[in-house]
Amino acid sequence: MPAEKSRIGLTIVFTGEGKGKTSAALGTIVRALGHGFRIKVYQFIKTPSKTGEQRTLKRLGVEVESLGKGFTWRNKDRDEDIDLARKGWEKAAAAIKSGKYDMVVLDELNYVLDYGFLKSHSVIKVLEAKPEALHVVITGRGAPGELVDFADLVTEMKMVKHPYHSKGIKAQEGVEF
Amino acid sequence: MPAEKSRIGLTIVFTGEGKGKTSAALGTIVRALGHGFRIKVYQFIKTPSKTGEQRTLKRLGVEVESLGKGFTWRNKDRDEDIDLARKGWEKAAAAIKSGKYDMVVLDELNYVLDYGFLKSHSVIKVLEAKPEALHVVITGRGAPGELVDFADLVTEMKMVKHPYHSKGIKAQEGVEF
Repeated sequence: MPAEKSRIGLTIVFTGEGKGKTSAALGTIVRALGHGFRIKVYQFIKTPSKTGEQRTLKRLGVEVESLGKGFTWRNKDRDEDIDLARKGWEKAAAAIKSGKYDMVVLDELNYVLDYGFLKSHSVIKVLEAKPEALHVVITGRGAPGELVDFADLVTEMKMVKHPYHSKGIKAQEGVEF
Repeated sequence: MPAEKSRIGLTIVFTGEGKGKTSAALGTIVRALGHGFRIKVYQFIKTPSKTGEQRTLKRLGVEVESLGKGFTWRNKDRDEDIDLARKGWEKAAAAIKSGKYDMVVLDELNYVLDYGFLKSHSVIKVLEAKPEALHVVITGRGAPGELVDFADLVTEMKMVKHPYHSKGIKAQEGVEF
């Protein structure tokens, strides 16, 4: 069981153009699970499907909620995107405030912020008031400056080499999805 | 079950000074497990212990072998370090060649190469001859140039902000170990 008393909940951001952002969040979950953490994952872009990660997280008993159903961030109707992003964030914010979790993962939230479907200050306001021991992990390209300023730990995944660019190899099942 | 026929095994490197290298490898395992991959993990630095990640990987049935017992890379006796690194690598090389796995993770191997305990060309020689469908994931700071040149996918984790540096917060259980 996690020692909540001595724990300082961190806001962790994985951003940048390179591969490994969601993977690093998944790995953080693996580590946290080994300490008995209660974890909730919100996937802001992905639709509920049978990706490898969703299957394994289910097996580990991690609650995963995909908010991407219909939320394509390519809709012609921008108002609809904004509405979906806001509704998704309301769910995530409620989980953050609830005190029910030791770690909340907001996968691809940066995209949603970067596209302007959600305001950074609304997110930061909730993070400022989060339970002290709660870790929050946020992934996605384009983390806004205000979020980087607020966060405790920020890693930028820099693409040095990508198989598609370097060798024309397409996305491989089991590695990229 | 993985579709071995159409699979192109990638050599993936997570390097750099920032956090998230081993986490990204763990996340890659999570994804791969969801596709039924057979996975072996060698930890070149860590000693066998009860880290969060080791506990969860065990729960998932992933074979983890820690080669760090006694291998401190701080020994006064450099010959002993070299000997331990070489013996560890022999085990990993045998697993790579065996055809028994879909993914082999070489956690912190870059350190061992960077310290000169093992030669990059010995590693690359084995990777060049690996089974075609096998994915190999290598982590650790200081990935040597020859390995970056050889690899298919390379991400550099760049430290933008670290809680110890930015706020004096020490390593948190469940996040960093």
